[in-house]
Amino acid sequence: MTAKKIFILNGPNLNRLGTREPHIYGKETLVDLEKRCRVKAKALGLELEFRQTNFEGVLVESVHDAIDHAHGIIINPAGLTFTSVPIMDSLKMFDGPKVELHISNVHTREAVYHNSLMSKVVTAVMAGFGTSGYLLALDWMAERLSVEK
Amino acid sequence: MTAKKIFILNGPNLNRLGTREPHIYGKETLVDLEKRCRVKAKALGLELEFRQTNFEGVLVESVHDAIDHAHGIIINPAGLTFTSVPIMDSLKMFDGPKVELHISNVHTREAVYHNSLMSKVVTAVMAGFGTSGYLLALDWMAERLSVEK
Amino acid sequence: MTAKKIFILNGPNLNRLGTREPHIYGKETLVDLEKRCRVKAKALGLELEFRQTNFEGVLVESVHDAIDHAHGIIINPAGLTFTSVPIMDSLKMFDGPKVELHISNVHTREAVYHNSLMSKVVTAVMAGFGTSGYLLALDWMAERLSVEK
Amino acid sequence: MTAKKIFILNGPNLNRLGTREPHIYGKETLVDLEKRCRVKAKALGLELEFRQTNFEGVLVESVHDAIDHAHGIIINPAGLTFTSVPIMDSLKMFDGPKVELHISNVHTREAVYHNSLMSKVVTAVMAGFGTSGYLLALDWMAERLSVEK
Amino acid sequence: MTAKKIFILNGPNLNRLGTREPHIYGKETLVDLEKRCRVKAKALGLELEFRQTNFEGVLVESVHDAIDHAHGIIINPAGLTFTSVPIMDSLKMFDGPKVELHISNVHTREAVYHNSLMSKVVTAVMAGFGTSGYLLALDWMAERLSVEK
Amino acid sequence: MTAKKIFILNGPNLNRLGTREPHIYGKETLVDLEKRCRVKAKALGLELEFRQTNFEGVLVESVHDAIDHAHGIIINPAGLTFTSVPIMDSLKMFDGPKVELHISNVHTREAVYHNSLMSKVVTAVMAGFGTSGYLLALDWMAERLSVEK
Amino acid sequence: MTAKKIFILNGPNLNRLGTREPHIYGKETLVDLEKRCRVKAKALGLELEFRQTNFEGVLVESVHDAIDHAHGIIINPAGLTFTSVPIMDSLKMFDGPKVELHISNVHTREAVYHNSLMSKVVTAVMAGFGTSGYLLALDWMAERLSVEK
Amino acid sequence: MTAKKIFILNGPNLNRLGTREPHIYGKETLVDLEKRCRVKAKALGLELEFRQTNFEGVLVESVHDAIDHAHGIIINPAGLTFTSVPIMDSLKMFDGPKVELHISNVHTREAVYHNSLMSKVVTAVMAGFGTSGYLLALDWMAERLSVEK
Amino acid sequence: MTAKKIFILNGPNLNRLGTREPHIYGKETLVDLEKRCRVKAKALGLELEFRQTNFEGVLVESVHDAIDHAHGIIINPAGLTFTSVPIMDSLKMFDGPKVELHISNVHTREAVYHNSLMSKVVTAVMAGFGTSGYLLALDWMAERLSVEK
Amino acid sequence: MTAKKIFILNGPNLNRLGTREPHIYGKETLVDLEKRCRVKAKALGLELEFRQTNFEGVLVESVHDAIDHAHGIIINPAGLTFTSVPIMDSLKMFDGPKVELHISNVHTREAVYHNSLMSKVVTAVMAGFGTSGYLLALDWMAERLSVEK
Amino acid sequence: MTAKKIFILNGPNLNRLGTREPHIYGKETLVDLEKRCRVKAKALGLELEFRQTNFEGVLVESVHDAIDHAHGIIINPAGLTFTSVPIMDSLKMFDGPKVELHISNVHTREAVYHNSLMSKVVTAVMAGFGTSGYLLALDWMAERLSVEK
Amino acid sequence: MTAKKIFILNGPNLNRLGTREPHIYGKETLVDLEKRCRVKAKALGLELEFRQTNFEGVLVESVHDAIDHAHGIIINPAGLTFTSVPIMDSLKMFDGPKVELHISNVHTREAVYHNSLMSKVVTAVMAGFGTSGYLLALDWMAERLSVEK
Repeated sequence: MTAKKIFILNGPNLNRLGTREPHIYGKETLVDLEKRCRVKAKALGLELEFRQTNFEGVLVESVHDAIDHAHGIIINPAGLTFTSVPIMDSLKMFDGPKVELHISNVHTREAVYHNSLMSKVVTAVMAGFGTSGYLLALDWMAERLSVEK
Repeated sequence: MTAKKIFILNGPNLNRLGTREPHIYGKETLVDLEKRCRVKAKALGLELEFRQTNFEGVLVESVHDAIDHAHGIIINPAGLTFTSVPIMDSLKMFDGPKVELHISNVHTREAVYHNSLMSKVVTAVMAGFGTSGYLLALDWMAERLSVEK
Repeated sequence: MTAKKIFILNGPNLNRLGTREPHIYGKETLVDLEKRCRVKAKALGLELEFRQTNFEGVLVESVHDAIDHAHGIIINPAGLTFTSVPIMDSLKMFDGPKVELHISNVHTREAVYHNSLMSKVVTAVMAGFGTSGYLLALDWMAERLSVEK
Repeated sequence: MTAKKIFILNGPNLNRLGTREPHIYGKETLVDLEKRCRVKAKALGLELEFRQTNFEGVLVESVHDAIDHAHGIIINPAGLTFTSVPIMDSLKMFDGPKVELHISNVHTREAVYHNSLMSKVVTAVMAGFGTSGYLLALDWMAERLSVEK
Repeated sequence: MTAKKIFILNGPNLNRLGTREPHIYGKETLVDLEKRCRVKAKALGLELEFRQTNFEGVLVESVHDAIDHAHGIIINPAGLTFTSVPIMDSLKMFDGPKVELHISNVHTREAVYHNSLMSKVVTAVMAGFGTSGYLLALDWMAERLSVEK
Repeated sequence: MTAKKIFILNGPNLNRLGTREPHIYGKETLVDLEKRCRVKAKALGLELEFRQTNFEGVLVESVHDAIDHAHGIIINPAGLTFTSVPIMDSLKMFDGPKVELHISNVHTREAVYHNSLMSKVVTAVMAGFGTSGYLLALDWMAERLSVEK
Repeated sequence: MTAKKIFILNGPNLNRLGTREPHIYGKETLVDLEKRCRVKAKALGLELEFRQTNFEGVLVESVHDAIDHAHGIIINPAGLTFTSVPIMDSLKMFDGPKVELHISNVHTREAVYHNSLMSKVVTAVMAGFGTSGYLLALDWMAERLSVEK
Repeated sequence: MTAKKIFILNGPNLNRLGTREPHIYGKETLVDLEKRCRVKAKALGLELEFRQTNFEGVLVESVHDAIDHAHGIIINPAGLTFTSVPIMDSLKMFDGPKVELHISNVHTREAVYHNSLMSKVVTAVMAGFGTSGYLLALDWMAERLSVEK
Repeated sequence: MTAKKIFILNGPNLNRLGTREPHIYGKETLVDLEKRCRVKAKALGLELEFRQTNFEGVLVESVHDAIDHAHGIIINPAGLTFTSVPIMDSLKMFDGPKVELHISNVHTREAVYHNSLMSKVVTAVMAGFGTSGYLLALDWMAERLSVEK
Repeated sequence: MTAKKIFILNGPNLNRLGTREPHIYGKETLVDLEKRCRVKAKALGLELEFRQTNFEGVLVESVHDAIDHAHGIIINPAGLTFTSVPIMDSLKMFDGPKVELHISNVHTREAVYHNSLMSKVVTAVMAGFGTSGYLLALDWMAERLSVEK
Repeated sequence: MTAKKIFILNGPNLNRLGTREPHIYGKETLVDLEKRCRVKAKALGLELEFRQTNFEGVLVESVHDAIDHAHGIIINPAGLTFTSVPIMDSLKMFDGPKVELHISNVHTREAVYHNSLMSKVVTAVMAGFGTSGYLLALDWMAERLSVEK
Repeated sequence: MTAKKIFILNGPNLNRLGTREPHIYGKETLVDLEKRCRVKAKALGLELEFRQTNFEGVLVESVHDAIDHAHGIIINPAGLTFTSVPIMDSLKMFDGPKVELHISNVHTREAVYHNSLMSKVVTAVMAGFGTSGYLLALDWMAERLSVEK
């Protein structure tokens, strides 16, 4: 039996993780985080595709790729969370489990960060667990996909 | 006398037409649709440029191209309809007839699909005629451009 | 096989077409338009009922008539578009294809013309194609009804 | 030189004037009021058409009549003031001076009486002058039409 | 002692009762309902006037008739409930008990059915009791009018 | 065959009925009302559970009891009508007929009394029938439950 | 018997009348207007106090003066109409007839000119009658005060 | 070293878990869930206090208890999430990590479930992970508290 | 002559006064505050009932007690201020002077603390005077009740 | 040690106190009130500056004076409370204790009196205590300033 | 050729510049700023009128003066920016270039500072450049007026 | 000492400057403007990076470049000003002075151009100074950076 494949998709400015407003996002870089995710995925027997982009169009096409190749999506659309109907539309097309993830608790920040377009079309949402949230989401994916198997 | 040129511009996720939510959009693919449009355009004596992109920036630049080369625009901005001021700004610059087209009747869907930014700057709007709407729009373009000639 | 029957229903002030704000609606009168529609319908093998009224109640009862006798409805409710729940209620009862049509692009006009009650209950919507829109709608009806046959 | 013609149009429930909420509208009946208007119009050399209806459609068609036959309109659309786009549309078509009149000061009443659709398309608005407002409006019409002559 | 007289007034589309969206309104026709009401009224010693119209103006004038001839009004203004200020104005003029009635529970339907203009000027409101609501309202009228006697 | 059981649940401040704002709620006390309901229920062959509480939690648990033991619920949530999501959630779980009842016509009062959370999850709503509304609701319950039998 | 005294109070920028946006306000100056008012007042047997100020505080104190000395107030608060609670408060204290007057039809202008604070506390409102409105208001004052005498 | 203590607090209607809308919440009962949590907590070396109540006041006082005795709070305030300022106020007083948890993805449900008062005062939020969310939250608590140690 | 009796009622979380957000509420405990109030009341010749609860239902019933036994109410409903219609309803039933009191200036805090439901039904409101506000309110009660005597 | 100085500043229309809407504000004049304040201030060992103006600019400059000379401000900005950003700006500059005071309970009046701009920048707010509120505020000032000493 | 004349107009509280919230506005006084402006104006060959007032009426009349005597206006209306329709009306009457200037970036402050009434009627807007903004505005005026010459 | 480096970043459609709506933006092209900026920068001793893009992602990455290489940013985000949270997020990460610039006065245009997301995170904002605004912004940068040196 082949391994289940998970896409972790990161949106704009997350390439600056570790330097961007570290009092909010912490000092860990995206490279560090990808490593931690790879270790976790391996332990769970999951295959991992890990991407970052500052372009809405690339994120849309990554979701298209996931539709063709993945069993689950973990997406942190960052600033595009609140305004991108195209990403929302692409996520609607994905039938498997999909987690929307925010590193910080967006609800405690400015109003512009409060209304996620994605929340209405994903399976589950988490915010404020720091970068550890990515690992929790992988744990849940492993459990969920094994149940569905 | 040279033929009038029409640009048909398609926005994000329309490359997945035929697979995306087929209960809403039908099973015809974008390639099928382009073919039907080319047959129609030829019959009407119109030259046709047919494009799709998932990038707002590419759509903006396609409208710039149309400003330089086309007599009419038929645009289905898909998810960008509701949020892209740059596309709206580019359409304002086009002086010829411009049709905003939606395959489904967006008004019967979720609220996020209700307020088009484009409707205020185009000549005409149509929604809910399925992919046949593209052909109706070409018919109208042919009539309109022959009147203006 | 008998011909399919289409009702074209026109609301308040459309009896003044050709004289009412001609910079918006053009100079063609309703009688001229009815003639163009009859020619088109004949060519498409459709039977046509063409009505105009300034009374909401008459429009409601015309939709009732359509429920009993027609295969498709093309309705331009004019000023009643934005406020008449009774007409919206009557349209809900009609099962066949129904097109909401506006001669001008209502979205470019004052706010009072922006929120159609009808759009949520019809099959398709068009605005801004001038009186040619009626003919496009007839074309679409013919295609749609032949597919459903 | 022929006399200038003024239409005074009254909307729903005004046929009950004198009995309807007399603490707001007074005890004068519509017949009494018409008489007072006729005396005034005669003194000013104006011809007068005075109508009342409870039907929006009749009011729309009375404005159509005024377009064909009158130099000025004084309209008290009563309850239709706040919701009838068809009447607003018909008034837009009238080029002469048009006065919107309310017997009571609508601004001191419930919120439903605050936003007139008509005010945006008429020449002038008056509210709260009681039935004397009709006579003031006739005075103004006489002056205005003599200036324009 | 003469019998108390009750007007039951029905608004637009209710002449289609039994055929209109039967999953919401049931299969009983308006004629059936009128019969049930007449039986009930007779049992309660009430005189009954039962009307239906698709015209706002007719409904306004029926309320005027009730002001002159009836002791109580049961009104189902249907689609006019949410927008007709003229009907609201006419109901204000009626001093006796007046019940606003909806066959379905309007609160569970689309937003356009949520804000009744009538509720603020009637004595009591009921919605969702099906056509049995008419009979309950007659029961209450009989009790109320006998108390007031 | 055992009798059908109805729960009548009353919310905050209704223990003060007869003394609380008697110009709105009348002079009958809750004890008087319970008696009238018991007489009526007996006549209809219904078993009755009649409760009042000033605690949201008790009301939630009474609905839980009803889920386990009752065939119908008549609930007057009083001040909790407009703000209690927990009661709304509990009512959603009850499958039988449920009536929301208000003694006064809440729509004629301050804005805070206008938006019921309950109306969206109950079968039917009544307001303004005074305490007689309880008896009407019992009548309807008897009819409804006998039909479903 | 002494003459009735009327205060005509004009707010900010009206000292520039005749030069300020003449396409809206006309070319008559405030001095010209005052003269026309004095002639009219004299003919009606009214005593006239005519003031203009650019200061809210002066307008408040002029209303205080009117409370002590005048029988009627005609006020054109100009730009203060929409924001000055102090002037509204002062007008509330005046018991006689008070007319709010605007030279232009404020309803056809930008939104900032739509919500008058004064309308809720005056007897009557007029807008769009040009400077002739002042004379109509004086006519009405004369009639009203003679009735009250 | 003594074990860290976690409070898991459950709000109204969660005592009906497994029977309440099982298509949304699943068939696991609260007793089952508590067992799964106890197993997990033991494995993580955490001490566990697990409570449910239908009373806002009890939830407030449980948070007070947590302030005195716990290192972390996992709270599912259920229907009180959206309206209880007292619970929000009590959570503000707790200095340790606090997770707001919802079994279903509240964002995909009715609007009344969209605006959590709690999200602004907790450390992290999760929704839609089913009852597995409780275990993920415990995992995160263990990691977080060991880091802070 | 017997002493006038005042109820001081405190809502949720006030039992934590002195420990809860001391930068906002100060370090004085509720027990300290009660003592200061008792000294003051004695000096003023007032009888004092001083209560705190975290339950809305208890607060409602305390107001009921006050209706039966007290001459004045000073209430600090804390977090229930902004959402409890039941408490508002109970306060409406109390005819004597009633003061709404907040220790902090709620207007300078988050939006959720800005709209008090209670303010519309009490005699007077104070916020931001710290715990000294309780003593000021007692002073005022003494003066007010002696005037009314 | 020199006495602490308090400014009591009164806004528009308060010079009419005692005559203005006495059912709301009472019959005491501003001169009477000033006397009562002077007696109280003397008893508390406070120096008092007591002013009234109908001009926003004067109120701004009085706050400037207070910044240079006073230890505390008690301000009743009357109608300017709801709209004057300049006064709000000036109060922000004052570092000592500042009380916003309204004689009537503004929350029970029209909506225009509900949103104070001042409340967000003052130390404490009181409304509805009648003119006695001024004395309570002086009491609090004395206590507050002696604590800060 | 005579020099071009520029009016620099400053609104409420700017006479306290240098002492008012220096963390926002800096320590330079208005006198210092005027000097810097005079040096700059001289260098640019511009004549300068520099005023400050705390009165809206004075600001209105200064704009009137500018209409009669100036070629350009630089205005910092301070707190009146957001509420004064009279100043907005006066600025509309000025035909030359007019700059609205704010020392701080008003957009980063409280909501009350976000909606300028002036921005809609001026030529250009600047905010956040500190007092240097005045000099930049003078530079621009010099360039603009020389172009127009 | 090395020169300070300034990034000037231009958003969508600005590559059409000079041809796009020239009545609003003027006839100068972007190439012309860049030249003027280079001359000015050279005179001020500033190093200049001048870019334009129609892609949000490119703009985000240009801000990232600026974070690594520039001392100041002048950004004209054009149509992305009003909707791009990713650009806003990237600007937050830049610590130096940042100016938001619009060629036209956006406040005098349609509502969609009124609410800038950027204004809340930049140092200063200017709009309506035409292309000269770029030069003013460079002047200010030079002064500001020399002060900070």
